[in-house]
Amino acid sequence: MKKNVSERSRIADPILAASGHAAIDWAGRFSPVLNGAVRDRLGTSDLAGKRIAVVIHLEAKTAFLATVLADAGAEVIAAGSNPHSTRDDVCAALVERGIEVHASRASSAERWEQDLLAVADTEPDFVVDDGAELTMRMMKSRPALYGRLQGVSEETTTGVARLRRLESAGRLPMPAMAANDAACKHLFDNRYGTGQSTMQAILALTNVRMSGLVVAIVGYGWVGRGIATYVRQMGARALVIEVDPIRALEAHMDGNEVLNASDALGRAEVVITATGGVRAIGTAHFDALAPGVILANAGHHDLEIDVPALQAAATQARELRDGVMQYTVNGKSINVLAGGALVNIAGGLGHPIQIMDLSFSVQALACHEVITGDYRPGVHTLPHELDQMIARAKLESLGVAIDHVTADQADPIDDLLESV
Amino acid sequence: MKKNVSERSRIADPILAASGHAAIDWAGRFSPVLNGAVRDRLGTSDLAGKRIAVVIHLEAKTAFLATVLADAGAEVIAAGSNPHSTRDDVCAALVERGIEVHASRASSAERWEQDLLAVADTEPDFVVDDGAELTMRMMKSRPALYGRLQGVSEETTTGVARLRRLESAGRLPMPAMAANDAACKHLFDNRYGTGQSTMQAILALTNVRMSGLVVAIVGYGWVGRGIATYVRQMGARALVIEVDPIRALEAHMDGNEVLNASDALGRAEVVITATGGVRAIGTAHFDALAPGVILANAGHHDLEIDVPALQAAATQARELRDGVMQYTVNGKSINVLAGGALVNIAGGLGHPIQIMDLSFSVQALACHEVITGDYRPGVHTLPHELDQMIARAKLESLGVAIDHVTADQADPIDDLLESV
Amino acid sequence: MKKNVSERSRIADPILAASGHAAIDWAGRFSPVLNGAVRDRLGTSDLAGKRIAVVIHLEAKTAFLATVLADAGAEVIAAGSNPHSTRDDVCAALVERGIEVHASRASSAERWEQDLLAVADTEPDFVVDDGAELTMRMMKSRPALYGRLQGVSEETTTGVARLRRLESAGRLPMPAMAANDAACKHLFDNRYGTGQSTMQAILALTNVRMSGLVVAIVGYGWVGRGIATYVRQMGARALVIEVDPIRALEAHMDGNEVLNASDALGRAEVVITATGGVRAIGTAHFDALAPGVILANAGHHDLEIDVPALQAAATQARELRDGVMQYTVNGKSINVLAGGALVNIAGGLGHPIQIMDLSFSVQALACHEVITGDYRPGVHTLPHELDQMIARAKLESLGVAIDHVTADQADPIDDLLESV
Amino acid sequence: MKKNVSERSRIADPILAASGHAAIDWAGRFSPVLNGAVRDRLGTSDLAGKRIAVVIHLEAKTAFLATVLADAGAEVIAAGSNPHSTRDDVCAALVERGIEVHASRASSAERWEQDLLAVADTEPDFVVDDGAELTMRMMKSRPALYGRLQGVSEETTTGVARLRRLESAGRLPMPAMAANDAACKHLFDNRYGTGQSTMQAILALTNVRMSGLVVAIVGYGWVGRGIATYVRQMGARALVIEVDPIRALEAHMDGNEVLNASDALGRAEVVITATGGVRAIGTAHFDALAPGVILANAGHHDLEIDVPALQAAATQARELRDGVMQYTVNGKSINVLAGGALVNIAGGLGHPIQIMDLSFSVQALACHEVITGDYRPGVHTLPHELDQMIARAKLESLGVAIDHVTADQADPIDDLLESV
Repeated sequence: MKKNVSERSRIADPILAASGHAAIDWAGRFSPVLNGAVRDRLGTSDLAGKRIAVVIHLEAKTAFLATVLADAGAEVIAAGSNPHSTRDDVCAALVERGIEVHASRASSAERWEQDLLAVADTEPDFVVDDGAELTMRMMKSRPALYGRLQGVSEETTTGVARLRRLESAGRLPMPAMAANDAACKHLFDNRYGTGQSTMQAILALTNVRMSGLVVAIVGYGWVGRGIATYVRQMGARALVIEVDPIRALEAHMDGNEVLNASDALGRAEVVITATGGVRAIGTAHFDALAPGVILANAGHHDLEIDVPALQAAATQARELRDGVMQYTVNGKSINVLAGGALVNIAGGLGHPIQIMDLSFSVQALACHEVITGDYRPGVHTLPHELDQMIARAKLESLGVAIDHVTADQADPIDDLLESV
Repeated sequence: MKKNVSERSRIADPILAASGHAAIDWAGRFSPVLNGAVRDRLGTSDLAGKRIAVVIHLEAKTAFLATVLADAGAEVIAAGSNPHSTRDDVCAALVERGIEVHASRASSAERWEQDLLAVADTEPDFVVDDGAELTMRMMKSRPALYGRLQGVSEETTTGVARLRRLESAGRLPMPAMAANDAACKHLFDNRYGTGQSTMQAILALTNVRMSGLVVAIVGYGWVGRGIATYVRQMGARALVIEVDPIRALEAHMDGNEVLNASDALGRAEVVITATGGVRAIGTAHFDALAPGVILANAGHHDLEIDVPALQAAATQARELRDGVMQYTVNGKSINVLAGGALVNIAGGLGHPIQIMDLSFSVQALACHEVITGDYRPGVHTLPHELDQMIARAKLESLGVAIDHVTADQADPIDDLLESV
Repeated sequence: MKKNVSERSRIADPILAASGHAAIDWAGRFSPVLNGAVRDRLGTSDLAGKRIAVVIHLEAKTAFLATVLADAGAEVIAAGSNPHSTRDDVCAALVERGIEVHASRASSAERWEQDLLAVADTEPDFVVDDGAELTMRMMKSRPALYGRLQGVSEETTTGVARLRRLESAGRLPMPAMAANDAACKHLFDNRYGTGQSTMQAILALTNVRMSGLVVAIVGYGWVGRGIATYVRQMGARALVIEVDPIRALEAHMDGNEVLNASDALGRAEVVITATGGVRAIGTAHFDALAPGVILANAGHHDLEIDVPALQAAATQARELRDGVMQYTVNGKSINVLAGGALVNIAGGLGHPIQIMDLSFSVQALACHEVITGDYRPGVHTLPHELDQMIARAKLESLGVAIDHVTADQADPIDDLLESV
Repeated sequence: MKKNVSERSRIADPILAASGHAAIDWAGRFSPVLNGAVRDRLGTSDLAGKRIAVVIHLEAKTAFLATVLADAGAEVIAAGSNPHSTRDDVCAALVERGIEVHASRASSAERWEQDLLAVADTEPDFVVDDGAELTMRMMKSRPALYGRLQGVSEETTTGVARLRRLESAGRLPMPAMAANDAACKHLFDNRYGTGQSTMQAILALTNVRMSGLVVAIVGYGWVGRGIATYVRQMGARALVIEVDPIRALEAHMDGNEVLNASDALGRAEVVITATGGVRAIGTAHFDALAPGVILANAGHHDLEIDVPALQAAATQARELRDGVMQYTVNGKSINVLAGGALVNIAGGLGHPIQIMDLSFSVQALACHEVITGDYRPGVHTLPHELDQMIARAKLESLGVAIDHVTADQADPIDDLLESV
C-alpha cells in the first residue's frame, strides 16, 4: 500500500502532460530493445506487487523506463537524481500514467532532499538509483526502510564505487546490481553518448562554430576522450589537460595537444571539465583563462567548475542568454554554461535516446533479475548472457546479421598446450 | 525622408527587446572582423544619408549587420528573406535601436509579400539581398523605385545566378556586388557552416544518436558534401544519392557509399535533401522510404521535400514534438522536420556566428564599396584585397600569424620561359 | 619512319623485363577504365601511323598507358619526365612490347636531356607531356620538329600554365589538350592521390609512427591540404605554414594549427614542402628546425628544399638508410628524404593505380580527340561528355549505380524569371 | 660460459652488417625512453653475468633492445619468434656487436625449430619471449634447463594466456612478467601501431588507393578496431565481420558497416583477418569472395587465411609481384599478401619504432625487475610506478608537460561516505 504521497504527484496539468506524453512516446520509438525484447522478458506480472523507486534524471527516457517497469506490474515512484534536470511536462504525463512523482524543475536543494525522503517513505522494495543518491540517504536517514530493501541497481561509475565501499564496510544488506558495469552500459554510454551530447549542448547554447575552434578538455577518462574525439572529428582542435602520465600519453597519441593548465587555458576558446573530481577550474586558474572564454562541465559533479569562487571573485555577473552566465573578473569576461551543472543534461537533451535504450535495458533487466532471482547481498554484475541478449536485440533492430564461430576456427592454443 | 513605415516597426515590447538585445550583443562578441576592421573601414559617416534595405533571415547575426550599417550613418530598413526564420525578439530590439522592421515570425506568405513591398516603398538606395528576393520584386512591382536603386549586394549562389540573368537580359541598371563570390563568403559558409548547423538542428529536434546512424544525403554539391563530412566524422554512415557522375565519383572517393535512390532510401534512418532543385523526395520515393524515417531539408528551396504530396498521400498527420510532423502513408510513419523548410534555420540556430562574421563582413564592405566607389552597372566581385583584408583580420582575431614570400622563393617558371 | 633510335631501347634483359611485365600487368588490373571503356573507344587502328611520345614518370602505370596507346595502333616512344623516377624493369618490359624507350634510372641530368632530345628526334606527331618538359625543349632546340607537331596533351598544373604562356605569346602552333583541367584528373589526383602516397612514402622510408606525430606542412594548395587531411586523420597533428591569408584561414578552419615558419619549425618532427615555389625550406630556416627533423618534398620542383644550401652548411653528410640523408648543421641533425625530390615518386610508389586510371584515361582520350578530331591551335579542355564518360565507367567498375534527374525536379528559377 | 654456439652467429659479412648497424642506430634515434631513462635505470652492470635469450621478431627494433640489455652487462642470445620476419643484415650487425644469433630469413620451419633449441641450449637465465614460443619449447624439450630459468617476460596476449595456463597447471616454476599487460604496452601497441603498420604494408605491397576502397575486417578485437579506424579515417569504407554481439554492436556504433561473412565478402576489395583464431577465411568462404580480392592477415597466427586449402583448390598459383601470390579458384583470381603471414611484419616494417620504444622499455624493465628483484614464481605485472615512469619519460621526450592534482581537487566521495 502506498504511503506518504507527495502533493505534487497529484497535480494534473493536461497541456503540460500532452507535451510530456509526446516526449515519452518519441523516446519509446527509438528504444527498440527496451520496448521489445526486454519488455517481452519482463512480461506483464513479474514485478506485480513490487514498489520500485526510479531516481534518475527525470526526463523522457527515464520516464519511458518507468512506464516499462509499470507495465510489468510494478508500482513505480519516480524522482530526479539532480534538481536541475527534471522536465515538468514529463512529470505531468507520468502522473497521468499512474506513476507517483516527487520532483519539479524549480526545486531548491532542500526541496530536492525532501523529495528523495518522500520517495523513501513510500517504502520501496527496489531502487533504480543514480550515484546511489537514494540508497545513501535511506541508509543514513531511513535505516529501517533501508533494511527492508530487496535490492538496488545502479547507473553510474560513481554510484557503483559507493556501493562497493558500503559492501566492504559490511553495510550493504541487500543485492545490488552494478548496471554500470554491464558491457551494454559502460561500453556505449560514455563513448558514444557523452561526446555527442556535450558538444551538441555547447553548440546549442552558444551558436559558435566548430571549425578551428580551440577546446581545452580537463581530464582524459572515458568522458574526456569521448568529447575530444568529437572535437577533433568536427574540425576543432583539442588541448588536453591530464595529470596521469599514461592517460596523458594516450591523449597525445590520439592526436590531441597535451599541455599543463597554465599553458592550455590561455589558448582555449572553450574549456570543458571532465575529471570526476572537484575544482578542475577554480580560483587558481581564473588568471590563466582567455578573455571571453566559455566554460562547460561534463563531469559527474556540479563542482568541477568552482562557480561559488567565480561569483566571489566577479565584479559583475549577468545572464547573457539562456544558460549563459557571464562573470567579470579583473575586467575579463568568463562565461559559464548551464550554471556549471552537467551541460548535456542541464543545458541540453541528455544522451541520445538510442544509447539510453541500451543503458535502460540493462536497468530493467537488472531490476527483474534481482526481484525474480536468487541473489545474495553484495554487488553483482548482470549475467553475460543477458548483456549479450541486449546487444543481439539491438543488432536485430538495426537489421544487422552476424555469424557464429565454426568448430574448425577455434584458437589452436589448447591443442598446443595439451601436446606438452 | 522615410515613407510608408509599417505599423509593426513601431511596436515596443521591452521584455521581448531585452532578449533580442542580448542575442544581438552575443552575436557581436563573436564577430571580431565585422565589429573591428570592417567597422573601422566604414567609419561613422560614410553611409550617411543612405537608405539601406537588409533582406536576410532576420535573426541575431543579421541584426548585428544592420546595426553596424546604421552605426556607419545609414538609415536601415530590415525584413526577412523567408517568413519562417524571423525572430520577434530580435525585431523588437532592432526597433529600439532605431531600425525600421517589416517582419514577424507568424507571417503568412501574403503578409511576407506585403512586408517586402513595404520595404521597397521606403525607397531604399541600396539592397543587401538574399536570393534576390527584394531585387526581383522591385523590378517587377516597383519599376520606378528599382530604376533609382544605386546598388545591390547578394548573399547566395541562387541570387547571384538571378542577377547575372538580369544582367545578360539588359535589365540590371545598377552595380550589383556578388557577395557570395567573395572567397571569405563561399569558401567558408557552406563548407564549415552548413554541415555543422544542419546536423546540430537535426540532433536537437530528435535526440537521436550519431554513432552508427545511417544517413542518406540527396545531392553532393557544397552543401551535401559539408553535411556528409560531418556525418562520417561523427561516427555515422553516409549514403549519397547524386545524379552527376563526376560528383558521384567524388562522393565515393570521400568514403561515402553511393547508391541510387531506390537502393539507398530503404536503408536510411535519416534522409537530408541538398539538391538545389525541387521534389528531391517526392511521390515517387514514398514507397522506398524506411518506416519511421526522418526527413530534413538543407537545400535552398522549401520544395526539396514535397510536403504537399506527403500531406495528400497521408491518412494521418500529427505533430509528434516541436518541429517534428509525422505523416502516416500506407501505414508507414514518415517524419518531416521543420515543415520541410531549411532545417538549420527554421529548426535551429542557423550558421555559427563566427562563420557569418566573414559573410557579413563581405556584405558590409560590398555595400560600402558600391556606395562610396565608382562601379558601373553590372555584376561585380569584391576586390581581392578586401577579401584578403577580411581573412587577415580574422586570422589576427584568432591570434594566428603568417609569413610573406621572400624574393628568392618565387616560382622559377618565368626564368625558364624567358630563356626560350 | 623512325629515326635516331637510342641504344638503350634495344637492350634486352629478360629477367628485368619479367619483373616489369608483372608490374605493368598489375597496373592494368586496377585500371578498369583505361583498360575498358577507353580502350574500346580508341579501337585498334584510330592511332595507326601516328608517332606518340609519352614523357611522364616512367613506371608501371605510365607504361600501361603507353601499351594502351600502342594497342590502338600508335608507334609509342617513351622517356621519363624526371631522371629519378624511372624503373628499369618497366623499361625493359616496354622494349619487349615493341615500345622505344629512352630512359634509365641511373641517368645524370645531362643524359636525361640527351634522352629527351632523342625522343624529339624520332619526329613525334603527338606529345603526352608532363610539366611541358618535352614541348619546351622541342620549341627551343628542335624548332622545325616543333612546327610539325600535330598536338600535345599535358598532365600537370605547371605544364598547363606554361602552355597558356606559350599560347598568349603566339608560340603554340598546334592544339594542346589541358588534360590536367579535366574533372577526372584534377579533382581526384591531388585530393585523393598525393596525400596518401606522400605519407605512405614517408612512413616507408622512416618507420615512424603517425599517432601524435607533429608534422609541419609548408603550403596549403591542393597538395598541401591533401597531405594535411591524411596527417590529421591518421592521428597526427598538422601545423600549416601558408602565406596567403585566405588559404591560411581555410587551413585554420580545417582543424590545422596555422603558424609562421619561425614558430612552427621548432615544433615539427617532420616538415613537408608543397608550395609550388622554391626554397620553401632554405638557409633562412635551418636554425629554426628541431634537432633530428625529417624533411620531405611533395611539391612540383626538386628545389623546394634547398639541398645544395644544406650541403654547403653541413659539417657532415651521410646516408643513414635507403633514401635518408643526414646533414649535420651546427651540431644539429637534419634528415632529408629522397634527396629532396618528390618523395611519393622518388621515394615511393607514386600515386595509387586506381587514381591514375582516371588521369591516364583523360590522357588517352585527349590524345585520341586531338588526333582524330578537328581542333584549332591553342589550349583546349577535354569535352565534358568525355569527362563524364570516364566517371561513369569508373562508377560502373565499382558497381555503383546512379539516378537521373526527372523533369519535375528541375530548379524553378527559370519559371520565376520568365514571370517577370 | 657460452655453450653450443650456432655456426651462423659467427658468420661475418661487413656489407650486410653495415646496413644492419644503420637500421639499429636509426631505431635507437626514435627510442628516447629505452635509450634514455630505461638505459639509465639498467645501469652498466645490473645484468652482468646473466644470459638473456631474446626471442622476438628479429629486426632492427628488437636488435636495439638486445643491444641495450647487453650494454647493461648481460650476455644476449637472439632468435626470431617467426621464421619469416628475420632481417639478415640486422643479424650480421648484432654478431659484430658481440651478440649470439640463431636466425636467418631463409629458414625453413625445421631450421627455425632447431634455432630455438640452440638458444635453449645456451642455458639462458632469462627469456624475453613472444608467444611463449621458447618457454613452451624449453618446458617440453629441455625440462632441466626450463627448471633452472630465473624468469621470463612475455610480449603478447597469446603468450600471457599460455603462461597463465602453465601457472594454473602448476607448471610455471619461475616468475614470469606479463609485459603485455603493462599499460605502456597494451594500450599503445595494438591501438596505435597495428592499424598504421597493417595498412602501410598493404598499400606498399599493392599500390591501391584508400579513397573509397571497400575493406572487410574479420574480427573486431583490439587489432581489428585499430585497422578499422585507419581504414575509415583514410577515406575507405570498413565492413566488419564479428561473431560476438557486443563487439559487433561496438563496430556498428564506431561507424563501420557490420555484416555476416556471406554478405560482406562479395563486396570487399580487400579482406583483412584479425580474429586470433584460425581459418577466418577458409574453404567455406572462397565462393563468396569477389574476383580479384586481396587477402591479408593481421592476426597472431599464420593460419587465419587457410592458404593450404587455397593452394589445394587453385587451378593456378603464381607470384604477381613481391609478396603477392595469385590463386585461381574456379576461374576467379584470389590474391594473398605475404603468404598469409602477419602482413605488417612479413610484408612491411612492423610496428612504428616510437611505439616499440614503449613496448621494449617495458620488456627491458621487466627483465631488470625479475633479475634484480625478489619475485615469487607465477605471473606478475610490471609495478605501476615503472609503467608511469615510462609514460613520463616518453612525454618528456615529446616536450609535453603535465600537472599534478592539488589537495582541494580530490573527489568528495570520501567525505560523503564518512558523514554517514
